[in-house]
Amino acid sequence: MGVSTAEHDRAPKQDRSRATRQRLLEAAVACLAEYGWAGSTVAVVAERAGVSRGAAQHHFPTREDLFTAAVEYVAEERSTALRALFPEGAHEDRRVVVAALVDLYTGPLFRAALHLWVAASDEEQLRPRVTELESRVGRETHRIAVELLNADESGPGVRETVQGLLDMARGLGLANLLTDDGPRRARVVAQWAALLDEALG
Amino acid sequence: MGVSTAEHDRAPKQDRSRATRQRLLEAAVACLAEYGWAGSTVAVVAERAGVSRGAAQHHFPTREDLFTAAVEYVAEERSTALRALFPEGAHEDRRVVVAALVDLYTGPLFRAALHLWVAASDEEQLRPRVTELESRVGRETHRIAVELLNADESGPGVRETVQGLLDMARGLGLANLLTDDGPRRARVVAQWAALLDEALG
Repeated sequence: MGVSTAEHDRAPKQDRSRATRQRLLEAAVACLAEYGWAGSTVAVVAERAGVSRGAAQHHFPTREDLFTAAVEYVAEERSTALRALFPEGAHEDRRVVVAALVDLYTGPLFRAALHLWVAASDEEQLRPRVTELESRVGRETHRIAVELLNADESGPGVRETVQGLLDMARGLGLANLLTDDGPRRARVVAQWAALLDEALG
Repeated sequence: MGVSTAEHDRAPKQDRSRATRQRLLEAAVACLAEYGWAGSTVAVVAERAGVSRGAAQHHFPTREDLFTAAVEYVAEERSTALRALFPEGAHEDRRVVVAALVDLYTGPLFRAALHLWVAASDEEQLRPRVTELESRVGRETHRIAVELLNADESGPGVRETVQGLLDMARGLGLANLLTDDGPRRARVVAQWAALLDEALG
């Protein structure tokens, strides 16, 4: 199959457009984590990304578009990174998997997502989109967790055991928001990883 | 011991002052849960409480004073209510205790506290006070949980088991922020209560 000259010309332009989009998404997450929702306007993000405001609005017509796309983008990057960490799927040592799952809930992405959730809880415009996004990301994370933990969800209580683990990870992320909670978190993760390993058989 | 006339006269005035303070604290929590930090000024809270702005500032010179006092006040009320629920201390059925503990992290208080945490993560003025408050409330909740669950913290891993449960409760509260997560939460709580019961022996 031949590639026409027109298609040849289009390719670099598409690449540039994709790169601009990605810079905007990364800047949006950084702004949200750093300044919160109130301080993160499209203009602030565009400036941080080194992109004109017009170009930013071409990619994302509204502020809501930009921020839900940003959190979704980074969540997908994280899922990909998590799968890449365990290329063979389930890992023999569940404690390693639990620690990696909990790591998803600390750092700038969780911080950005948290700001978005809290803003969405107050703003009617944002709420349905963030709720939908959150449930999609949550289902995907659950799927990955079940796979990596080699959990058999047909067993009684297994589904809820894994859900509770992800809730604990979210709570640990929240505890880390104001102070560096690393040493305590490591002890809690070690203990619950042992309890989960036993529960999952 | 006699009571002087001056003391007699002071008592009703103190009562009124205490009632005003309490109305302000309750209004502050309601505003924070409803409008978030950005929308919750001292003026907004005073109006909701039916108190003059001058009176509000007499009780709480700064916005930070008002909101940290508000979240602390309601956290104390909740601890008292939790202890009153189990007047004999440890309860024979740990699932009942776990459900009551998780309930602390849903509803308007948790919502208000969450807004305060997220605001504090961005605002240097607020951060040290909220961090200090959070660690005090956290220690008190942990103490109550250990007592009601009849957990022996001298055993290996017991402390971390209880901490992880409270982290899970916090994560469940966060999951409930955007959607009513009640039915899922009930199933997770039932399963984790069973795991916990086994772990604590």
